[in-house]
Amino acid sequence: MTKTTDKRPTSAFTAIDFDRPGRQIGHVMFPHSPHEDAWGVTPVPIAVIANGTGPTVILEGGNHGDEYEGPIVIGELTRELDPKEIQGRLILMPSNNVHAARAAQRTSPVDGLNYNRTFPGDPYGSITEQISAYITDYIFPLGDAFLDLHSGGSSLDILPSAIIEPTLDAALAARNTAAARAFDSPNTVVIGNLGDPRTATATACRAGLTTIGTEMGGGGRVSIDALALCRRGVRNVLAHLGVIDPKHRTVENPEGRTFELKGTAAYVYAGTDGIFEPFHKLGARVSVGQPAGRVHAIWKPSEAPEVVHYGCDGIVFAHRQPGRVEPGNCCAVVAAPI
Amino acid sequence: MTKTTDKRPTSAFTAIDFDRPGRQIGHVMFPHSPHEDAWGVTPVPIAVIANGTGPTVILEGGNHGDEYEGPIVIGELTRELDPKEIQGRLILMPSNNVHAARAAQRTSPVDGLNYNRTFPGDPYGSITEQISAYITDYIFPLGDAFLDLHSGGSSLDILPSAIIEPTLDAALAARNTAAARAFDSPNTVVIGNLGDPRTATATACRAGLTTIGTEMGGGGRVSIDALALCRRGVRNVLAHLGVIDPKHRTVENPEGRTFELKGTAAYVYAGTDGIFEPFHKLGARVSVGQPAGRVHAIWKPSEAPEVVHYGCDGIVFAHRQPGRVEPGNCCAVVAAPI
Amino acid sequence: MTKTTDKRPTSAFTAIDFDRPGRQIGHVMFPHSPHEDAWGVTPVPIAVIANGTGPTVILEGGNHGDEYEGPIVIGELTRELDPKEIQGRLILMPSNNVHAARAAQRTSPVDGLNYNRTFPGDPYGSITEQISAYITDYIFPLGDAFLDLHSGGSSLDILPSAIIEPTLDAALAARNTAAARAFDSPNTVVIGNLGDPRTATATACRAGLTTIGTEMGGGGRVSIDALALCRRGVRNVLAHLGVIDPKHRTVENPEGRTFELKGTAAYVYAGTDGIFEPFHKLGARVSVGQPAGRVHAIWKPSEAPEVVHYGCDGIVFAHRQPGRVEPGNCCAVVAAPI
Amino acid sequence: MTKTTDKRPTSAFTAIDFDRPGRQIGHVMFPHSPHEDAWGVTPVPIAVIANGTGPTVILEGGNHGDEYEGPIVIGELTRELDPKEIQGRLILMPSNNVHAARAAQRTSPVDGLNYNRTFPGDPYGSITEQISAYITDYIFPLGDAFLDLHSGGSSLDILPSAIIEPTLDAALAARNTAAARAFDSPNTVVIGNLGDPRTATATACRAGLTTIGTEMGGGGRVSIDALALCRRGVRNVLAHLGVIDPKHRTVENPEGRTFELKGTAAYVYAGTDGIFEPFHKLGARVSVGQPAGRVHAIWKPSEAPEVVHYGCDGIVFAHRQPGRVEPGNCCAVVAAPI
Amino acid sequence: MTKTTDKRPTSAFTAIDFDRPGRQIGHVMFPHSPHEDAWGVTPVPIAVIANGTGPTVILEGGNHGDEYEGPIVIGELTRELDPKEIQGRLILMPSNNVHAARAAQRTSPVDGLNYNRTFPGDPYGSITEQISAYITDYIFPLGDAFLDLHSGGSSLDILPSAIIEPTLDAALAARNTAAARAFDSPNTVVIGNLGDPRTATATACRAGLTTIGTEMGGGGRVSIDALALCRRGVRNVLAHLGVIDPKHRTVENPEGRTFELKGTAAYVYAGTDGIFEPFHKLGARVSVGQPAGRVHAIWKPSEAPEVVHYGCDGIVFAHRQPGRVEPGNCCAVVAAPI
Amino acid sequence: MTKTTDKRPTSAFTAIDFDRPGRQIGHVMFPHSPHEDAWGVTPVPIAVIANGTGPTVILEGGNHGDEYEGPIVIGELTRELDPKEIQGRLILMPSNNVHAARAAQRTSPVDGLNYNRTFPGDPYGSITEQISAYITDYIFPLGDAFLDLHSGGSSLDILPSAIIEPTLDAALAARNTAAARAFDSPNTVVIGNLGDPRTATATACRAGLTTIGTEMGGGGRVSIDALALCRRGVRNVLAHLGVIDPKHRTVENPEGRTFELKGTAAYVYAGTDGIFEPFHKLGARVSVGQPAGRVHAIWKPSEAPEVVHYGCDGIVFAHRQPGRVEPGNCCAVVAAPI
Repeated sequence: MTKTTDKRPTSAFTAIDFDRPGRQIGHVMFPHSPHEDAWGVTPVPIAVIANGTGPTVILEGGNHGDEYEGPIVIGELTRELDPKEIQGRLILMPSNNVHAARAAQRTSPVDGLNYNRTFPGDPYGSITEQISAYITDYIFPLGDAFLDLHSGGSSLDILPSAIIEPTLDAALAARNTAAARAFDSPNTVVIGNLGDPRTATATACRAGLTTIGTEMGGGGRVSIDALALCRRGVRNVLAHLGVIDPKHRTVENPEGRTFELKGTAAYVYAGTDGIFEPFHKLGARVSVGQPAGRVHAIWKPSEAPEVVHYGCDGIVFAHRQPGRVEPGNCCAVVAAPI
Repeated sequence: MTKTTDKRPTSAFTAIDFDRPGRQIGHVMFPHSPHEDAWGVTPVPIAVIANGTGPTVILEGGNHGDEYEGPIVIGELTRELDPKEIQGRLILMPSNNVHAARAAQRTSPVDGLNYNRTFPGDPYGSITEQISAYITDYIFPLGDAFLDLHSGGSSLDILPSAIIEPTLDAALAARNTAAARAFDSPNTVVIGNLGDPRTATATACRAGLTTIGTEMGGGGRVSIDALALCRRGVRNVLAHLGVIDPKHRTVENPEGRTFELKGTAAYVYAGTDGIFEPFHKLGARVSVGQPAGRVHAIWKPSEAPEVVHYGCDGIVFAHRQPGRVEPGNCCAVVAAPI
Repeated sequence: MTKTTDKRPTSAFTAIDFDRPGRQIGHVMFPHSPHEDAWGVTPVPIAVIANGTGPTVILEGGNHGDEYEGPIVIGELTRELDPKEIQGRLILMPSNNVHAARAAQRTSPVDGLNYNRTFPGDPYGSITEQISAYITDYIFPLGDAFLDLHSGGSSLDILPSAIIEPTLDAALAARNTAAARAFDSPNTVVIGNLGDPRTATATACRAGLTTIGTEMGGGGRVSIDALALCRRGVRNVLAHLGVIDPKHRTVENPEGRTFELKGTAAYVYAGTDGIFEPFHKLGARVSVGQPAGRVHAIWKPSEAPEVVHYGCDGIVFAHRQPGRVEPGNCCAVVAAPI
Repeated sequence: MTKTTDKRPTSAFTAIDFDRPGRQIGHVMFPHSPHEDAWGVTPVPIAVIANGTGPTVILEGGNHGDEYEGPIVIGELTRELDPKEIQGRLILMPSNNVHAARAAQRTSPVDGLNYNRTFPGDPYGSITEQISAYITDYIFPLGDAFLDLHSGGSSLDILPSAIIEPTLDAALAARNTAAARAFDSPNTVVIGNLGDPRTATATACRAGLTTIGTEMGGGGRVSIDALALCRRGVRNVLAHLGVIDPKHRTVENPEGRTFELKGTAAYVYAGTDGIFEPFHKLGARVSVGQPAGRVHAIWKPSEAPEVVHYGCDGIVFAHRQPGRVEPGNCCAVVAAPI
Repeated sequence: MTKTTDKRPTSAFTAIDFDRPGRQIGHVMFPHSPHEDAWGVTPVPIAVIANGTGPTVILEGGNHGDEYEGPIVIGELTRELDPKEIQGRLILMPSNNVHAARAAQRTSPVDGLNYNRTFPGDPYGSITEQISAYITDYIFPLGDAFLDLHSGGSSLDILPSAIIEPTLDAALAARNTAAARAFDSPNTVVIGNLGDPRTATATACRAGLTTIGTEMGGGGRVSIDALALCRRGVRNVLAHLGVIDPKHRTVENPEGRTFELKGTAAYVYAGTDGIFEPFHKLGARVSVGQPAGRVHAIWKPSEAPEVVHYGCDGIVFAHRQPGRVEPGNCCAVVAAPI
Repeated sequence: MTKTTDKRPTSAFTAIDFDRPGRQIGHVMFPHSPHEDAWGVTPVPIAVIANGTGPTVILEGGNHGDEYEGPIVIGELTRELDPKEIQGRLILMPSNNVHAARAAQRTSPVDGLNYNRTFPGDPYGSITEQISAYITDYIFPLGDAFLDLHSGGSSLDILPSAIIEPTLDAALAARNTAAARAFDSPNTVVIGNLGDPRTATATACRAGLTTIGTEMGGGGRVSIDALALCRRGVRNVLAHLGVIDPKHRTVENPEGRTFELKGTAAYVYAGTDGIFEPFHKLGARVSVGQPAGRVHAIWKPSEAPEVVHYGCDGIVFAHRQPGRVEPGNCCAVVAAPI
């Protein structure tokens, strides 16, 4: 499928031929002229595997540079998938925010930006804005579906889940929900990100692509369980979309639960400096007003810790990973059953 | 108990009277003259709870600034223990590397030093060296026993364990082992730290104190389970040492296992830059030569990951928390049964 | 007073009800997703005290993070003012550039921006731009008057003064001048900021609010005298505006002098690297062409110091606080009598 | 010559009178309000030498802060040229990115920007954007010709060359080419910069000025030979443009060769981390597919180095100066004969 | 006077001939091999003015890099004093911690050290330790008297005073006191620095030199009044020591008061994070237990400020300059009358 | 050859068996416990190639991390040399300051130290001190000869030369000189490093090893010519020492010249901030008092450049690479013929 779009100019270039069958592995090169390298490029890895007819599915990893299950699975598909196994086309991008991935940071060490707050980007902006502009203008128009594979990152430990991107387009919403359920995670969560339009998934939805996300563990580590779920879930979605044979689909959570983050009440924030002690494990049922944990100023042992409380009913969906908190840091997140 | 020692001079001072009964909470002040504060001090928190007769037990937290279960438990004891409940004296120091604790770093942001590699310190050295000199010269001589409450910190996730500090003094070794077992952790591990004499526990042993350590979880977070174990274990040790009533002792692991780290073979190191994927969970039984995990260069999807292997038989005692590794980073640690 | 405005969308939220009488203290929360805290917020403190009928007065402190008299006075009003004492509404914001205030920096350590050069802001820009967008779209429309309480900050020591924001709207100019004189500072100064439209006060004027500023001392410190003046002056302005009883008004400077900064001639800049030695104290009368001070290269004692000169007649209104200067640094500022 | 243009407002100011004959040396002052200097300026050095009638030629150095031959030559002209020697006007700006020049960085240490990727700038943007806006709006309209004197900078060592800025305006292209050849460099190269419109030279062309560039050596050093060429070449161009007497023109390279960079094939990029060893010296003839050098991981001596290859035929026009490369760094550049 | 000492080897060198009459201005060069300059030196400025017979007086400025009155006065003497005016020898060192002086920092930006906590230094240590070793081994043995000209620096604002270095050698103590009183400051203060032996003045005393210090203002600025006092006081001391004619001596404070800092009780420390508001001006009489000021958490307006108290009777000798404090920062210092 | 030495303890370990014939490639592992990796190691690469009988030659590269010809040649020998080709043993260490090598810095980014100023090191010091202690205690005692392969590094461009380490031991001096001449560089230079005993070569001499150094180009780049010289010279020395067959020896400079650096007069230092313009190329004959170059303040075009002069007769042996200089930076070095 190829759509007509208003592409902004770009100085990015690639040796990849998106229309050629078989497997290609290469880079999109973004000219980049910092002190250290006047005429260099930022090489963003990309692979294309194409065969026969079928939809084009775009897989993104490394939207944030400290979330790893998705990039590992995309790398495995890149190396291991036989083009003959598919019908259609996979565009595999394991490390889109590549400077952040090499630095193991959520945000780019080059320009300080959170790639997932830069869409639709700017082809003459900083390097992160150039990458999101290229994805918006040159990659999304090639696709029918978009999988944005996140994990919790360095600051959050999240219950591994498939994520539904909400949209006002009812038909697209149904496609998104079906694809997310096809992932077969025990938990599926609708995350509206407080309405922020600057994310990759919101942009993919505006471009009409079937869109799903994931949150696979976190804490800046690779989780054995979340990685297994991600491997299985991505294949399930590809089978659901018709790119690989349905026989690769496995169902372990036929009655998977669906939740949503109910606006700002879902988040428990620290109000003071200290060390956060959570009171409940991920997945525990909790209710509004219940104590969620305490913040200890361990350098002031005479001071009683501050207690923080949940703002709605539901299950504990995420915890802050680093013990150290400052005022405003997210300590816990509650997902409410739908 | 007061011993005669060769104390080096110090410019540190405190309003705490170590000989006064009851509860006192204050600081040891270390004069510190950086750019930001010409005539200021580094205030290291300290509390003393004393009553009747009995041994003096020193509890240290915040040896590293990103290990939290110990400091939280020391803070609770500081605020909640009624002096009447004890016989003897507790010297409670929850944040000895206080600059590191406020910064949530293993090492001090002021001088870059790992406090636990600076003993016996230097009263005219940098701030971290001054603190370890003071502990060596002015605190250890007051004590009969020393509990050094560590966790895995930001870079390691460790199976919660009591730690035995090895010593060539057989009587002391027996006291150390008995105290460590009294902690009642499911796992107790002998860690020799490759013979490094510069740690707090090695120094306490040289000073003749009954010495135990802990490794309570890690990943830079507060673990609900490890915190519960730490709360219970510290009270168990205090009861074992006769400072609190034996009725506070609880035994949940009467057959707790004991392990040791067998020198350099215990450690699995990364050989290349990438993201470490572990193959086994903490506590799993593994054997020498078995693959321990893989290192993925997620920004080079064409490159097969590097496999790393275990160097001895045992259980997986620790994993690296951050996925990102550089050559030489510790990916996993194996503890061998004794 | 409520005006109709074209509000841009915002993802900021607050539990404050601006229409409820009595005292409320809380925060405006700005979602912020850096490496350290994926789903956290920047909490900007805000209080509302409302009672009966009367104008709405907005008090801003912490526009720059190293200016303290204003924030202290706003904090005192927040805690101490009995709602019954007022008629109308106070919106009290003591630390609008809250990251800068915690860091004691003029500019935000998060995005490097000078908040007072970001108006009217950008709801999808960096955190500082989001705050100024919120003030522009959601706070200024609630107000009848705006007090922006500055001091000299880390780099300048300024003669404590009320500041008149110039405007081409003659009626507003008269209201601004009357309010500034009501402050009852010994000195009142018109500062046009070389016409820069990106400040909070310029934006408040464009929104039609009666607007005054202050410059209370500086040098990065809290001045005892400037704090006393600020406490008294703010109450004087509130009484002038009819929010508190006129009996709280005190007049100590019935013949206060008025000055203006006459464009670029007001500023004395360093031309070389060195240490600035001023020749006259704040408030001294000086004239165009007169030597204002010398710049000593103390590391080159053979080199004669560079003499710098005043560019207009008037009084010395400000001095650079840090001795160290680079070319272009502002060494002194002259205010000319009107 | 004075053109009518749509000038955006600016808060920059200068004591230079562009219409006065004789020599003036001063600054353009850009108000700048960082933490260190609330009311200071960034002083950009500028000189004007004018006499009689003739064209206005603008000479820019310090577009990047680590390229030195041009600024040295501009400084010599500023101090040594007798106004009587010229007909017309020289606008001499040796350090336009002045913060970068003082820091010896390609990019500004204040806002991190590459000045030569910020045109046409923003008068209310960051300091680098303000400078490029001023050049665009207030300097280019004064000029008939523009010489942008670059060298290779810290990261590149370049064959000293005059540079032709390509343009679709055939008449201007002819003027640009004639001026570049007048420089009398042994090598003249057309560099389109992959079509990027954000450079000073592209902007000068859009404003209709005769435009030439240079690349004089590099490696962050001052080259004796390149400096001699630059001194001679600048005078040659000024004579060609009729500003100085034609007798000052010297011709040493009557048969100078002309090359072009043929798009992305001109650049050889590193694919891995290591130390780049070039195989050919600057000026050597090379052909497509030929090995250009190797990248050694000197910390992994067991690993064979990666060989990189040329992408087109031509001469070696540039090499990376620092041995250390990361993926995407430019190792070598090939210029193809026209 | 030349003493026999055990000089450690040094790689420092200078072209200054300490035995030659007249004025010499140069440097002591310390070989220094950082990344930026493999074979460079750190040039510490030094001047010698010698004539006839008389004592050798060493004047040090720039012991800390952000204290300016002393270096300015030493620079003036260096340039302006006619060798014929003196009998004896002046060794003038205005910027001994020269990296710190150029950086306007108390401590060296090269090795992070406070020069005045490094004596007696280490000729093979870091650059600051090399400088203090050279002063100890090669400069102090040349001298009869030592003036160490400090100011309050960036973090403290101090009542301008002459400082007496205490010593157990009664004869030296008498010489030190006489010299300090000769300075003719309104206030003279004994500062023992809590017994720290690592300062320049303590080292000079151990070497038998008549030693005085100063604290001239502070706040990182040049104080007009303190500079005038310093100019006059230094000449008074030189006249007292017989190096310049007694007619240059001026007495304005015949009844100057003498104080001392009574150990740790003299210092008021912050106990929490916030902004320090002092309650009394420099020089005010205060008494033990009296509130000294408050610490406001301006970002938490609901929180009442913390009050801090004086620890002894006396006058307010110093205040913290920056409003922002962290726990342990010195807020105020009390000097007790002797 | 194995000598008896007083080895200090070390926690370093390696799998290399220094007594086994054939080729081994591995690491010396130095336990290192920073924030990022609590139980990791610093892996210093090492290879041993041994066969038959003959001397042990130690080759060091990466003493400084930005000098590349030596490490490349050592890597080539490591991979390419057939053990059968040698008689004796090679200990090949291409990146001893491995953190610096990966960072392309002269000095270690971990502890800021210049490895070549840390000998004889400290087994319980910082990581760089641990490495030099290990080399001193565990590597040098294994050797008969030591080749320390330096280049000019980032800050210096040096005439490629073999370097003679001076020693008072006449027999060793003769061996050193013979080995250095065997390298067959066009230029051989005696460099005493102003007598500093803290270098690797000074330490090797004290241990009795035949010792030579090199300075191969510099500027932070890989020089094609210097690399060719280094490849040939190292083989020449190995042949001279009897480790490889004399037939591999090539003589191109039978009349190579010998020079020495005559103490501090050899160095030309900058006296001011600016850009250094050299007047003569490497190898040019110059004489004492002759102008060596100029320092241009390119941001102050009105200021005439400062001229610096040679301090002795000889040839230009080295130039500063980066144009930017600060006072004390080494601009040029003169080598005097012997």
